[in-house]
Amino acid sequence: MTDHTSKQFDSELEAIRTKVLQLGGLVEQQIWRAVEGLTGDDEARLNEVVQKEAQVNRLEVELDEACGAVLARRQPAASDLRMIVTVMKVAPNLERIGDEAEKIARMAKMIHEAGRMHTPRVELNHMATATTAMLRKVLDAFARLDAQSAAQVVRQDIPVDAEYQGVLRQLISFMIEDPRTISRSIELMFIAKALERIGDHTKNIAEFVVYLVKGRDVRHLDVDDVEREAAS
Amino acid sequence: MTDHTSKQFDSELEAIRTKVLQLGGLVEQQIWRAVEGLTGDDEARLNEVVQKEAQVNRLEVELDEACGAVLARRQPAASDLRMIVTVMKVAPNLERIGDEAEKIARMAKMIHEAGRMHTPRVELNHMATATTAMLRKVLDAFARLDAQSAAQVVRQDIPVDAEYQGVLRQLISFMIEDPRTISRSIELMFIAKALERIGDHTKNIAEFVVYLVKGRDVRHLDVDDVEREAAS
Repeated sequence: MTDHTSKQFDSELEAIRTKVLQLGGLVEQQIWRAVEGLTGDDEARLNEVVQKEAQVNRLEVELDEACGAVLARRQPAASDLRMIVTVMKVAPNLERIGDEAEKIARMAKMIHEAGRMHTPRVELNHMATATTAMLRKVLDAFARLDAQSAAQVVRQDIPVDAEYQGVLRQLISFMIEDPRTISRSIELMFIAKALERIGDHTKNIAEFVVYLVKGRDVRHLDVDDVEREAAS
Repeated sequence: MTDHTSKQFDSELEAIRTKVLQLGGLVEQQIWRAVEGLTGDDEARLNEVVQKEAQVNRLEVELDEACGAVLARRQPAASDLRMIVTVMKVAPNLERIGDEAEKIARMAKMIHEAGRMHTPRVELNHMATATTAMLRKVLDAFARLDAQSAAQVVRQDIPVDAEYQGVLRQLISFMIEDPRTISRSIELMFIAKALERIGDHTKNIAEFVVYLVKGRDVRHLDVDDVEREAAS
């Protein structure tokens, strides 16, 4: 980052970086709570997710305010400006990950209230493991300004999408075999979809981390080109 | 907007505003092409949507670059800064609306290839009419800096969500009556979901227009409070 004459400015930027990591850590916990609540039939965990959603929203608003204040008062340039622009792009993606976790929790509550059923537990757990690993890695890449690690996250989204398609096919088979499972299966389908969306948002964040470090907008490039830009 | 000594700066801001409206108009057309292609069984319209997706992405990237350039060179303040921050929030929402239109077109193509079926044509058309009306209104509110009109768009998202739930219930009934329709119905369900998401993104844009005009962040407020802020 640029060398600042102002220590105060440094600490403002540091506070923003810290808050991004805090929001990231919180939404990662939200995913876990939601998926464990679903597969472990744990109503209390699910309620916790719904309660903590307000905290996710508040952190996003605070981040936007902090970035707006830096833009208005500090007129950041070069890499500092890129940091602020990146945070303004990353924060809404983190907030949407929180939204998806909340949707999972709400659907899981409906499933529990209606009685348990055959759940693709293994696959949903696996999707949650994969997406939270991506999220942890991209937050770490953001903290360490590591573009190559961020590019790896972009690639990791591919098997998540494939696994989602697998869950979809499995649920369609359940429904065809036993049409009484249709309503329930559709809720599970939207849960799988939410996990797939979490992967997408995490991939978006990874693209912005590459931008932050390399100054190149890599959205809409294919993954080989993203890796090349990150390694350049 | 602030009175500028620089005519050049004025024309940069004007170019950004114009490009937002251009991107907005394009994604509105994309929604229509996708839904007409689906309900009218028109493969050429659907292909057009897929082709124009690159144009949507390019306009978003250009908008981000233009905003970044203004931040770096002009150090905008007050309402100009708010305009830039708003555009940086609005552009990704417009791009995602374009994404959803493309998803609709791709699923519609799969449905056509597999042969026609009972489609909730009326409801999907109605959802498309409602969401494109919201989109047109919010773009107009952005152009005219009309916070109250933007707040109305926030309220208009409520019946769209209700209609989506209705389509979901209708499709579940089809599936239970005739399990052979399951795969097809699930594609239609994701089409309805995409329209519902378009409503959500449009509502997000409306909240940012209220912020642009009133300087107040109204995300996460309920709709009555948004209207109060917009009228204040």
